[in-house]
Amino acid sequence: MSYIKDLRWEKGMQVKDLLNSYQNLGYQSIELKKASEVFVKMKKDNAKIFLTFTSNMVTSGLRGFFSQVIKLNMANVMVTTVGGIEEDIMKALGEKFSIGNFDSDDVDLNEKGINRVGNILITNESYMRFENEMLKILDRLYKKQKRWAISDMLREIGLMLEDESSILYQAAKNDVPIFCPAITDGAFGFHLYLFQQKHKDFIVDVVEDFGNILLVTSHDEKKGVIALGGSISKHHAILCTLLNGGANYAVYMTTAHKTSGSMSGATTNEAKSWGKVQYESDIATVVGDVTITFPLAMIGALEKLNEEGLLKNEKS
Amino acid sequence: MSYIKDLRWEKGMQVKDLLNSYQNLGYQSIELKKASEVFVKMKKDNAKIFLTFTSNMVTSGLRGFFSQVIKLNMANVMVTTVGGIEEDIMKALGEKFSIGNFDSDDVDLNEKGINRVGNILITNESYMRFENEMLKILDRLYKKQKRWAISDMLREIGLMLEDESSILYQAAKNDVPIFCPAITDGAFGFHLYLFQQKHKDFIVDVVEDFGNILLVTSHDEKKGVIALGGSISKHHAILCTLLNGGANYAVYMTTAHKTSGSMSGATTNEAKSWGKVQYESDIATVVGDVTITFPLAMIGALEKLNEEGLLKNEKS
Amino acid sequence: MSYIKDLRWEKGMQVKDLLNSYQNLGYQSIELKKASEVFVKMKKDNAKIFLTFTSNMVTSGLRGFFSQVIKLNMANVMVTTVGGIEEDIMKALGEKFSIGNFDSDDVDLNEKGINRVGNILITNESYMRFENEMLKILDRLYKKQKRWAISDMLREIGLMLEDESSILYQAAKNDVPIFCPAITDGAFGFHLYLFQQKHKDFIVDVVEDFGNILLVTSHDEKKGVIALGGSISKHHAILCTLLNGGANYAVYMTTAHKTSGSMSGATTNEAKSWGKVQYESDIATVVGDVTITFPLAMIGALEKLNEEGLLKNEKS
Amino acid sequence: MSYIKDLRWEKGMQVKDLLNSYQNLGYQSIELKKASEVFVKMKKDNAKIFLTFTSNMVTSGLRGFFSQVIKLNMANVMVTTVGGIEEDIMKALGEKFSIGNFDSDDVDLNEKGINRVGNILITNESYMRFENEMLKILDRLYKKQKRWAISDMLREIGLMLEDESSILYQAAKNDVPIFCPAITDGAFGFHLYLFQQKHKDFIVDVVEDFGNILLVTSHDEKKGVIALGGSISKHHAILCTLLNGGANYAVYMTTAHKTSGSMSGATTNEAKSWGKVQYESDIATVVGDVTITFPLAMIGALEKLNEEGLLKNEKS
Repeated sequence: MSYIKDLRWEKGMQVKDLLNSYQNLGYQSIELKKASEVFVKMKKDNAKIFLTFTSNMVTSGLRGFFSQVIKLNMANVMVTTVGGIEEDIMKALGEKFSIGNFDSDDVDLNEKGINRVGNILITNESYMRFENEMLKILDRLYKKQKRWAISDMLREIGLMLEDESSILYQAAKNDVPIFCPAITDGAFGFHLYLFQQKHKDFIVDVVEDFGNILLVTSHDEKKGVIALGGSISKHHAILCTLLNGGANYAVYMTTAHKTSGSMSGATTNEAKSWGKVQYESDIATVVGDVTITFPLAMIGALEKLNEEGLLKNEKS
Repeated sequence: MSYIKDLRWEKGMQVKDLLNSYQNLGYQSIELKKASEVFVKMKKDNAKIFLTFTSNMVTSGLRGFFSQVIKLNMANVMVTTVGGIEEDIMKALGEKFSIGNFDSDDVDLNEKGINRVGNILITNESYMRFENEMLKILDRLYKKQKRWAISDMLREIGLMLEDESSILYQAAKNDVPIFCPAITDGAFGFHLYLFQQKHKDFIVDVVEDFGNILLVTSHDEKKGVIALGGSISKHHAILCTLLNGGANYAVYMTTAHKTSGSMSGATTNEAKSWGKVQYESDIATVVGDVTITFPLAMIGALEKLNEEGLLKNEKS
Repeated sequence: MSYIKDLRWEKGMQVKDLLNSYQNLGYQSIELKKASEVFVKMKKDNAKIFLTFTSNMVTSGLRGFFSQVIKLNMANVMVTTVGGIEEDIMKALGEKFSIGNFDSDDVDLNEKGINRVGNILITNESYMRFENEMLKILDRLYKKQKRWAISDMLREIGLMLEDESSILYQAAKNDVPIFCPAITDGAFGFHLYLFQQKHKDFIVDVVEDFGNILLVTSHDEKKGVIALGGSISKHHAILCTLLNGGANYAVYMTTAHKTSGSMSGATTNEAKSWGKVQYESDIATVVGDVTITFPLAMIGALEKLNEEGLLKNEKS
Repeated sequence: MSYIKDLRWEKGMQVKDLLNSYQNLGYQSIELKKASEVFVKMKKDNAKIFLTFTSNMVTSGLRGFFSQVIKLNMANVMVTTVGGIEEDIMKALGEKFSIGNFDSDDVDLNEKGINRVGNILITNESYMRFENEMLKILDRLYKKQKRWAISDMLREIGLMLEDESSILYQAAKNDVPIFCPAITDGAFGFHLYLFQQKHKDFIVDVVEDFGNILLVTSHDEKKGVIALGGSISKHHAILCTLLNGGANYAVYMTTAHKTSGSMSGATTNEAKSWGKVQYESDIATVVGDVTITFPLAMIGALEKLNEEGLLKNEKS
């Protein structure tokens, strides 16, 4: 039995020290430490790790952290929404997103040609330069082949980018497939459409890509799911692991609650219904803003794995 | 200037009477009544109405209400996630979903072959019968043509169903296109994949369908968005109206909050940044469970339009 | 076993009809109908009903509905926070609260002498007139006796008011005690303080009032708790019923979630741990804005009780 | 203008380093870093700091952290609910709270004599030993004087305890008054009641205590409010600073949202309406579980102040 212990600050406190205090602190801090431990377990058990996130997290500075996580071999399959793909490319092209306010005057922003995602601002110019790049990218893809599964297309784009902090770049270099089941739901989709108007034999094959994610793992392999936020990215990873016999480890981090019956708010308890997860200690659901909670839990895991010599050398 | 007024129950109170009281009650009830009024405005202004919802709402009994809303010509374009398509078909086949509990013992449910969505339960048998039907459906589709845009495919399936309460059926009969940008993210996707394995020339063309939604409206047409829940269904409708100059009316109903920067929690204030919405009275954001709030707001609007003789005759 | 049923609008639909549809709709709508049924059960079982609410609900138009609920004998003990007392008095004095916006410019409002509670606005003038009235009220109270238990004081004030829609007035007339454990936490407290400065023998006895709420019921009596929102009003009613052996019925309506360990988000499941509640059907937790959910559930119960001839005649 | 920057983990990362990354990360992490900066500003500006928290935070291990914060002179006035007082005393008596689960079987817990607060468990024995101690405490208080303002009573109790980690003990030793406007809303109130039954001249004077909090500061003094969670503790501090001309700095940390018009969800924007706060940079509202967010923000501030030699020596 574990007991509540009083938290105490020590000068120069490391993130891992705070995580250790969270273990005995209360409410979501306990779940957060548990999430960190499940990350370590997944890794030690050689599970194939599915990392899913929504596009607003790529808008944030988590984008570079995700690419570091790939480099450190802590994510083996990724699922995201198309906005995440677009903004990773924009940032790889050098676009800068500025910090605004949740309660902005949106009419005023519109007049200045600024788009708002929560408290993050993106200019119209960024989208225009992205458009120019997309034209070049699609030309190069089309020259290579006419029919593309999405994850193959994203790997190819990743290899075109030259940015160590890019998710697509690191994923391509580290053989981590990125799945994006709703590839048309964004500016990317608009450019695909315009391109197809001129090249009727250009095909984006979503059905083939479903086969790709299905075969990315197997019933025999251990599987772990780290779902940040909800939406189809979370659902797609759960679906794929389910069709392969269910995940052995699951961590969900979200601001949604289970009371509305939505996928975003579904908890890891359901993971037990998959029939694979045996122990309460192999799952964690952390309610809170992912920009705060995910770095804490993952850094705690990275420090632990590094201490035990189990972390891949980032430089190699 | 409007003032708070004390609510008073009268015997035999109608839904529209309660809605009228909400107008002066406070907090989200005021927004709810406003949402109802924006529904009426959209209709009177002959706006093309985009109705979006997530699959958990089709799991619920809102499914039959959506089909009635189509019949009454209150939705002209729909966007949903693939789970919504699957469950509409399952219900059209006669499957019954039972009512459970948010705090179920999921291990126990799993052993009984029961799947849980919040407090709603679906048996494995329902999924198995759905699978059999899908095989027939795909055969018929393939015989007709090899390459399908998703909305065309869904219309074709709708015509195969014989259920007045089916969303797909009513949409097909009333020329309301249904868009589903992530068609592979569910059991439906799995069956598409298995079918394509045997029929390599079978293509689901998501890019073509982006053209379809793009051309479903125009800059000149008035446009209204009713987004229930978040996810890509909400985003897709916003994207399409944006590319056509922006919506003139917008109602968002959701349990998510704007503080995490997610699409699910984004408010209608941003609609003002699209440059089309001029007045505060043309938008509403209602925070709350959609199974409670949407029927209230829509019934209020239907009663009002009916009184003024502006509602399409359901029987015709 | 209950099944999900498709919702269908019928012209002239009554609130009770919608409630009946909620029963088979899904997620929180099912809980809402259950809440309505628990209200009916409490009444039929002659339970003593504790109704608790936070002050923001008195700011809203629920205030008049609460007073009607008292008149109809659906609330036998009330607990609230002091803001609720203040605003009930202000409204009894004729003050009008206007409707604003959640995203107001608060600096601007401040310059205009306007105070904001969510989307409801109260002028400084209203507070000033309340202050004048408080001086008269305290003088009258002091002339009667020097030491006051709070619930006795509130009854006395209720008898001074002449407003059928006033909570204090109806409570006093119908022998419903109102408890307010933090009586000093508002403008009311400030006026008590100023008065005591001049009258050192004036004592507000909170400890005596704890005895009053404790003895308002007994172990033998059936007890029901309707807690709207969280805070000490909810806690105080639970505490009192616990010390009397636990409630037999409990309905919590709130926007808070259980994940933070707060009283506001605590669910009725805990009611089972009190050892009195036997059946799942005697409790309900409804997540959502109380201005929307409480009228629905209570009107449903009033209609039902009225049909069965079990409702007190309001006119008597 | 600030820009979003990619987060990058470095081995042995300190909490303050992570805080610095949060500054440019996104959504609530940006607000969290801002909260930390406002803490530093309050201190540097010699503001009188009001720290408020709800009882569930004392149930958690934040309790010892609050007492350290007092010792370090980062809290000058405290407001809490009575459960927080009770549990601080229980812990000072050596009671241990164990860690459970949000989804416990509450009927089973009840049979075992265990009470649940979220995922924290308290035994009936702990309450019984608290009761015994209360009898001794009340005897000693009564011998000293018959009429007590609450904050005086709490200081006296603090001096009786011998636990460096106790909030009451550290507050008493460091001349930090603790206010608790609803002192009867808990087991503490029950014991006060039983005691008063035997000693009719024993008076707890809440009105006098309102004077105490009113005079704890002045219009001339700079004031800062740190409100953790909502309820009357938050409201009481805001009320007191308002009556003294308004706070100059305000940080609210909560899981509640502003959409329901509740005090718990009210944001710091309203602080601007008080007329004192001039700059956006002097306020912050952080949505999230306080057990995670408060340690992060406060540790960041302590490290910063310590580096600049502005932190009181804890040992002195």
